[in-house]
Amino acid sequence: MQTVALSPASAPAHRLVETVVTVTDASGVALPDAEITVAQTSHAFAFGNIGFDFIGLANGDDDGAGAGAGSAGAVSERLAELFVDVFNTATLPFYWGRFEPRQGAPDTARLQRTARWFLDRGVALKGHPLVWHSVQPDWLLGLPSREVEQLQRARIRRDVADFEGLVDTWDAINEVVIMPVFDNGDNGITPLARAKGRIPLIRMAFEEARAANPRARLLLNDFDLSSAYECLIEGVLEAGIEIDALGLQTHMHQGYWGEDAMLATVERFARYGLPLHLTETSLVSGRLMPPDIVDLNDFQVADWPSTPEGEARQADELERHYRSLVSHPAVEAITYWGITDDGAWLGAPIGLVRADGTPKPSYHALRRLVKDKWWIAPTTIATDADGRFAVTGFAGGYEVRAGAAASAAFSVSATQRHVTVSLTRA
Amino acid sequence: MQTVALSPASAPAHRLVETVVTVTDASGVALPDAEITVAQTSHAFAFGNIGFDFIGLANGDDDGAGAGAGSAGAVSERLAELFVDVFNTATLPFYWGRFEPRQGAPDTARLQRTARWFLDRGVALKGHPLVWHSVQPDWLLGLPSREVEQLQRARIRRDVADFEGLVDTWDAINEVVIMPVFDNGDNGITPLARAKGRIPLIRMAFEEARAANPRARLLLNDFDLSSAYECLIEGVLEAGIEIDALGLQTHMHQGYWGEDAMLATVERFARYGLPLHLTETSLVSGRLMPPDIVDLNDFQVADWPSTPEGEARQADELERHYRSLVSHPAVEAITYWGITDDGAWLGAPIGLVRADGTPKPSYHALRRLVKDKWWIAPTTIATDADGRFAVTGFAGGYEVRAGAAASAAFSVSATQRHVTVSLTRA
Repeated sequence: MQTVALSPASAPAHRLVETVVTVTDASGVALPDAEITVAQTSHAFAFGNIGFDFIGLANGDDDGAGAGAGSAGAVSERLAELFVDVFNTATLPFYWGRFEPRQGAPDTARLQRTARWFLDRGVALKGHPLVWHSVQPDWLLGLPSREVEQLQRARIRRDVADFEGLVDTWDAINEVVIMPVFDNGDNGITPLARAKGRIPLIRMAFEEARAANPRARLLLNDFDLSSAYECLIEGVLEAGIEIDALGLQTHMHQGYWGEDAMLATVERFARYGLPLHLTETSLVSGRLMPPDIVDLNDFQVADWPSTPEGEARQADELERHYRSLVSHPAVEAITYWGITDDGAWLGAPIGLVRADGTPKPSYHALRRLVKDKWWIAPTTIATDADGRFAVTGFAGGYEVRAGAAASAAFSVSATQRHVTVSLTRA
Repeated sequence: MQTVALSPASAPAHRLVETVVTVTDASGVALPDAEITVAQTSHAFAFGNIGFDFIGLANGDDDGAGAGAGSAGAVSERLAELFVDVFNTATLPFYWGRFEPRQGAPDTARLQRTARWFLDRGVALKGHPLVWHSVQPDWLLGLPSREVEQLQRARIRRDVADFEGLVDTWDAINEVVIMPVFDNGDNGITPLARAKGRIPLIRMAFEEARAANPRARLLLNDFDLSSAYECLIEGVLEAGIEIDALGLQTHMHQGYWGEDAMLATVERFARYGLPLHLTETSLVSGRLMPPDIVDLNDFQVADWPSTPEGEARQADELERHYRSLVSHPAVEAITYWGITDDGAWLGAPIGLVRADGTPKPSYHALRRLVKDKWWIAPTTIATDADGRFAVTGFAGGYEVRAGAAASAAFSVSATQRHVTVSLTRA
């Protein structure tokens, strides 16, 4: 039996799944010794990026005034092409204070259109975040915690329900470790977190979101990857709160942490048996932020250019970062935090595309991994005497074609190692 | 009615409790207009220190080879006098690896004699610690976690039961935040903590200790006072584990943290509604440890002298530290971590007594607070027409005397504001 296979040298062994495919005609009769072309069409692994920059484009009002943090100005169709060529998941901004700056007037319709725009292009959505102490609406300030809690519960139910089928993955709650002791400005959520305690607040977020969309995949997300997050997770799991995946932020404005440190961190959190999502990943292609900055938001510069040396470093580090993360079986998603430098968080050159719209080396490096090293390009082989062939590649969507017009789609996944496909004429 | 009262300027208002005392003769008849002398005899607040240095003295084998960490060499009776004049609580060392270096041969009898020696001198005991990853017995190494757990459970039950009535306060488990990720040398407890998880391990420690001595006061104790400990505590409380008090370590070898930082920390942990014990307090009277040291144990020097400038600073900081802690209503115990520099932890001059046995200014400063500013010295007044007088002072033990031979003891506490005492002849 002929096999279409990725080289084990190109990818971690545990990512390569062998699937035996029996090819039949439309009536179900196996097609022996048939010349077919096999190709991968998508990744099951979530290669994500923020979709904040495309809200204007998706809504036909590309004025750069998106609902998100950061906007791309004159977002071009070209940037969208670059996005969808590499990324299969987009994080949409549901920062409460920007999503609903005036109470009762949420930005639902625009975000729904944006979600559909991405889905039309084969990109799944993730919502970020349902509960957070930053970027919260000013109209929460001064309200008693009991009232804040009712408003927060209602907002979770409303938005998760409004986006069911469009956004089915959510950061249910963000940065809880620091939440009750956060002291960088007044907000309505910190007093609530302090009054209820971290675990009851997490329970509130997960229960409301779960009730509104039982199919939703719900994450706990944090930037604090110290023992504090471990302690929080252990308390949450002991309390019986159902977490679908753990979110780990890895903003590296102060420099790449290196494979060893990164994998040691991943290993510490993998021991809870939950899938890990690297929810916020960034590497700068310019000078690094000084190491003494504790809250990245405290570093404000007028101009932070992307440099040739920085871009070379970013590309190298990005490839190493993705290779190390994909090498760990617990990791099932990596979301990069910026497609373009135009409007990037903190003004830092963390994008994979320069502000002028041209891709950086990091973009090409990531594309090479996602669509070349870890990807099965169209390959022509013959089925065996029983109409079978095998494919060994990343879990995801594949297609088989015979001639110009007969094709069929199938999935490669660890749960079904033998599939039968019927070629149909388009 | 005449009142014996501490000045509100000398002590935090919430520490001053007014108690009205009716004095009667032995037959219960009130004694009006009687001249009496009122004096405080003890503090309810736990002013503690480590008792490690007195194991040899208490056992009549003062060779300095105590079971504890640090020993005083030729421990003098004078050092004991200095101890009992200020401190009403002693922490005894139950480090498993030193308490039971050979499996099955625990140092029980010596520690029991030491506990009785302290109790005879009016000093209550605390045991430290029942579970810890450091100073664990080498004979645990290499055993499967299941077996380590059984041995650990049995050791808790045995020692808590063996010391019931002698040691009724325990650090049930020590430094759990770092426990499962501790990597400074092999030990049998870290793998157990990693396998069980932090909260189940805490539950194990508390359940075993509670079962062995239902009257015991059981603490969770940690040096990590960051949000990590908050998260751990919240998980433990959510899991329904009954904690009697929270232990906060404050070793300040790298310099005094200051009142504001200290009270902010106390306030963060006070919000759980549990009493706070400052379990391990130290301030150096010599040069400070460099600020870049993370694990204090990593700083090893051959000679670390106490200096006149350092002693003046230590005395000033110690008084400020105790005043700020006693000002917070949640704090009910402060244990200093060293009576003498001779054999002090890390060789640091953190003692209140120099290695030559002479008290430092810090000793006098603390004694002045505990036995002068916060203490009611013998005061002669008259009872009123109903045989009453009032006392306003720290909670604790008091006595009233009439003449040379008639006396009675009573307590001042927030729970009973009116007491009747019958004078009896000695």
